[in-house]
Amino acid sequence: MYPLELQKLIELFKKLPGVGNKTAERYALLVLEMEEAEVEEFAEGLLDAKRKITECEICGNYTNGKHCDICLDAQRDESVICVVSSARDILAIEKLNSFQGRYHVLGGLISTVNNVMPNDLNIDKLLLRLNDEVKELILAFSPTLEGETTALYLSKKVDESVVISHLAQGLPMGGQLEYADEMTLLRSFENRKKV
Amino acid sequence: MYPLELQKLIELFKKLPGVGNKTAERYALLVLEMEEAEVEEFAEGLLDAKRKITECEICGNYTNGKHCDICLDAQRDESVICVVSSARDILAIEKLNSFQGRYHVLGGLISTVNNVMPNDLNIDKLLLRLNDEVKELILAFSPTLEGETTALYLSKKVDESVVISHLAQGLPMGGQLEYADEMTLLRSFENRKKV
Repeated sequence: MYPLELQKLIELFKKLPGVGNKTAERYALLVLEMEEAEVEEFAEGLLDAKRKITECEICGNYTNGKHCDICLDAQRDESVICVVSSARDILAIEKLNSFQGRYHVLGGLISTVNNVMPNDLNIDKLLLRLNDEVKELILAFSPTLEGETTALYLSKKVDESVVISHLAQGLPMGGQLEYADEMTLLRSFENRKKV
Repeated sequence: MYPLELQKLIELFKKLPGVGNKTAERYALLVLEMEEAEVEEFAEGLLDAKRKITECEICGNYTNGKHCDICLDAQRDESVICVVSSARDILAIEKLNSFQGRYHVLGGLISTVNNVMPNDLNIDKLLLRLNDEVKELILAFSPTLEGETTALYLSKKVDESVVISHLAQGLPMGGQLEYADEMTLLRSFENRKKV
């Protein structure tokens, strides 16, 4: 019912995650209401990001150069590497302003269901980074079957001289105990801490 | 923390209605995961829609030509014009596959709060369309203060030979009576129909 070009733009917006027909329609109609210069900026922004952003050669983080800002930062602690599944997780951790080490992006987690094998992940590069300076690997994976499988695999691959830790599991802050799932509650009992 | 181009793309996505930081981030990261050809298609789609879609010279509906498909369709009834606030409303009504007349887009509703005056709206063109053939104007506005103000204004401007109607107000289908607001319930009493 909409003219062809508008219908096509709606279809394009539907490729974005979680965007259905109604939302795509709202987005497309807003684009029509923008100034032409604004739409040109939008189009250029898409192409620019896609063409200039690549993965850091060392850790796999997003970068517009060869190496990302974190790998280039000489201030950061070389002795701790935080291993994450995707580059997005780095931002979440960086927002805490607490971790001062380095990162390594695996590009996924081992999953037999989705047929993701260790060879599909950025694991070899991680093992090559483990020189004498690296004392600890923090595995910052989501507490899922895939996360635990990947943690187990890495713990067997990595030399015993390197300490491997994973993020604490338990009740989330502000969460209601009565609504916690059984697994979370069980873990929070197992990992209880002295007050 | 993200590279410049990525940060910029996130800012651009935040211009879309209802898109905050988190959602814009998800959209931008998805763009990075798309094929370059796909991103080019997206960028072209934006420009194409913006450059080729204009308003129908007769009714104000979206079109990629001078006149929209509905105005060009000789089968449609010339004697009834459905007046809407925005071109989006046309799609909602067309989906019903029920109304066979023509449309007219006002491009807004009279609003003293937002300083929208009759002169800001596409009203003159509507009055010019009211030749002898037009027998009825259906005012399909949202039942708000602005909708009612605009309806009142039009009813005074339009010659008495033209019937003016507005959409029925009452309980929405599937709605719970106990949750209906007072105004809706009041209207549904006033406009009650014999079973």
